[in-house]
Amino acid sequence: MISRVMSAELAEHAGQRVTIAGWVHRRRQLKSVSFLVVRDRTGLAQVVATGDLPPEESVVRVTGTVVAGEQAPGGYELVAPEVDVLARPCAAPPFDLYRPAVGAALPTVLDHAPVALRHPLLRAGLEISAAGVAGFRETLDRLGFTEIHTPKIVGSATESGANVFGIDYFGRPAYLAQSPQFYKQAMVGVFERVYEVGPVFRAEPHDTVRHLAQYTSLDAELGFVRDHRDVMAVLREVVAGMTESVRLRAAAALDLLGLTLPAVPAEIPAVHFTEAQRLTSSGEPDLAPAQERWLSEWAEREHGSAFLFVTGYPMAKRPFYTHPDPERPAYSNGFDLLFRGMELVTGGQRLHRYDDYVRALAERGEGTQAYEGYLQAFRYGMPPHGGFALGLERWTARLTGAANVRWATAFPRDLHRLSP
Amino acid sequence: MISRVMSAELAEHAGQRVTIAGWVHRRRQLKSVSFLVVRDRTGLAQVVATGDLPPEESVVRVTGTVVAGEQAPGGYELVAPEVDVLARPCAAPPFDLYRPAVGAALPTVLDHAPVALRHPLLRAGLEISAAGVAGFRETLDRLGFTEIHTPKIVGSATESGANVFGIDYFGRPAYLAQSPQFYKQAMVGVFERVYEVGPVFRAEPHDTVRHLAQYTSLDAELGFVRDHRDVMAVLREVVAGMTESVRLRAAAALDLLGLTLPAVPAEIPAVHFTEAQRLTSSGEPDLAPAQERWLSEWAEREHGSAFLFVTGYPMAKRPFYTHPDPERPAYSNGFDLLFRGMELVTGGQRLHRYDDYVRALAERGEGTQAYEGYLQAFRYGMPPHGGFALGLERWTARLTGAANVRWATAFPRDLHRLSP
Repeated sequence: MISRVMSAELAEHAGQRVTIAGWVHRRRQLKSVSFLVVRDRTGLAQVVATGDLPPEESVVRVTGTVVAGEQAPGGYELVAPEVDVLARPCAAPPFDLYRPAVGAALPTVLDHAPVALRHPLLRAGLEISAAGVAGFRETLDRLGFTEIHTPKIVGSATESGANVFGIDYFGRPAYLAQSPQFYKQAMVGVFERVYEVGPVFRAEPHDTVRHLAQYTSLDAELGFVRDHRDVMAVLREVVAGMTESVRLRAAAALDLLGLTLPAVPAEIPAVHFTEAQRLTSSGEPDLAPAQERWLSEWAEREHGSAFLFVTGYPMAKRPFYTHPDPERPAYSNGFDLLFRGMELVTGGQRLHRYDDYVRALAERGEGTQAYEGYLQAFRYGMPPHGGFALGLERWTARLTGAANVRWATAFPRDLHRLSP
Repeated sequence: MISRVMSAELAEHAGQRVTIAGWVHRRRQLKSVSFLVVRDRTGLAQVVATGDLPPEESVVRVTGTVVAGEQAPGGYELVAPEVDVLARPCAAPPFDLYRPAVGAALPTVLDHAPVALRHPLLRAGLEISAAGVAGFRETLDRLGFTEIHTPKIVGSATESGANVFGIDYFGRPAYLAQSPQFYKQAMVGVFERVYEVGPVFRAEPHDTVRHLAQYTSLDAELGFVRDHRDVMAVLREVVAGMTESVRLRAAAALDLLGLTLPAVPAEIPAVHFTEAQRLTSSGEPDLAPAQERWLSEWAEREHGSAFLFVTGYPMAKRPFYTHPDPERPAYSNGFDLLFRGMELVTGGQRLHRYDDYVRALAERGEGTQAYEGYLQAFRYGMPPHGGFALGLERWTARLTGAANVRWATAFPRDLHRLSP
């Protein structure tokens, strides 16, 4: 490696001559003195210089003497520098990366993502995202889950016929997987408890602030549950583990963004769908975004919780593999988890008997042919099981307060956007 | 959860009445006594029973008294059982899962993956795979890398025009990403050090034992390198970390498969491409599989190493973003890592100056238009950097001794296979 100390380590080298390296975050050339602020992956370092300095986003290596500096980030700065330019930019960034706020609207940020994401605030969101994923895996590893990798190219557009991307697969039609649902269920037969972190694809024809054509789905599935409540208990651990991981792994990012993490209650409050309907005076068989927001506010007010489970969605609104509530078969053992006003997770107990699948498909007017590969697992004995899928971009957007999931995605894909 | 103890914990409950749950791995009904072997995610438990027993792959819950049993796996078994059947299979598995060896050829295994992967030997391979991925992340987390998630749908078939899957993207042509190459490089500008574990897609028109249409790529990229040797040093740490993780996290699977892990030398031996040519008496500008095997055997013989770096591949055979060797510009700062006879990793130093990209593309007769999004990062200052991509299925196949990567993949995709 290029021999260097990191900007966050300057205090440990007070009085020494050291080399730092990074990007010119800002240069300020005054009459008698100039300042160069260098950005590396640990933070910012100030260099006191004279004369002409390279422009912002130049890549530099600076050797200088570490001295205390009251105005410097971290309390130390470099003086008497030699500046070596490793790469020069060809253009100025579309907005100033050194200003505290992001001085551009979302389309500009997305069009220029490779440079825009260097802004500390935007970078911080992605750090929080990475820390959340690490917490997801850590929690499930601790609970005996095994990580799997499943096909993203599938032979039939099964889970929901609409919103699927078609592929030319060696001259045959194929589709991009909308979820790892069938595969994670099958793998419960192998490992009992599995998870996957991976891309899923939805050909969403609508432009909304919460849908993407590709997003990162955090999927888990587990066997030998009594019903969906066991799945909800695991999900509570996962959300707590993700939150704790963000606290530990992304402390600087939280600080920079001025965020407060939610408390995750020992038991997340839950309301049945019928109760949610009553509370929101709704007669519809599903909850609209406005109702989800209202319910979240209600949970905050009544239970002091940023999280709320809604259980027992009507069977008619859930996929065919959903397990009904044995007491009230028109309602399901499925749930959503709302977080700060938005659906963050969908999950539930699944059917586990082959005959139940055949019946459920017949009731929806479908045969089993398109599902042969899927149904195989159930032909050979499957335990009662369930699982959930958590949308990473929604998680990050809710934590960071982003109004649009695109702020929480490095390179989003949607109806209009296919680059960069 | 269904209240139960795991089969591996029986010894801790000697003399107690406990409940276990899992699949009927085997039933043996003799004249005076019957045995039920129950498989759960921790192993096997023997139940001494009488009378009719449910067939193999039934899902059962068994309550019984734990007693020492010389013939029992783990030394303890359940007697005086009550057997509760949670799910019955509709058919017998395509081969007996209880036999020590896998009694079916690869096509049968792949056609019946949801049940075939329950065989302890096949399951063990996937455990080793998961442990390797955990070691990859653990090593890079320790070295200050940040995890990223990048688009799998891209607007132009850039990296190599051939072998790309086309998609209908809201009526526009798009493609499945062959690698996260461009995105991971761009993200070096944000985080300096990044990694991604995700699917990549190759429309491989050939049927070989080492190619898949979708595989899991373990990608890393890092900035502020002197040259490719810094990348190789990080890769050495990664391979050592993956091996150690398999040792720690998949001990039972290693044992079951009777595997010996490779020693990872403190410095992995390296030969320059020209030397590799000389050793294999080859005049070709690339190494054929047979030559890779020969070189691996040579490294084992001469250096006692299962790993061998081949460096300095000719520029003509590497992608346009490859950094040339400054001393010998016809050769590259690119490398492959061979492991037990097969190319496991490709990597190298990349170009980092915008002008160098424009020139490299021009020399290959290409303009910059299809690469605008990619080249953005370089317009705004990028440090010297490099990285690598490791194929997970090849890693697992080499460790387990599988002759075909399909043995190391739960649900492979290839020219002929799109299900299950």
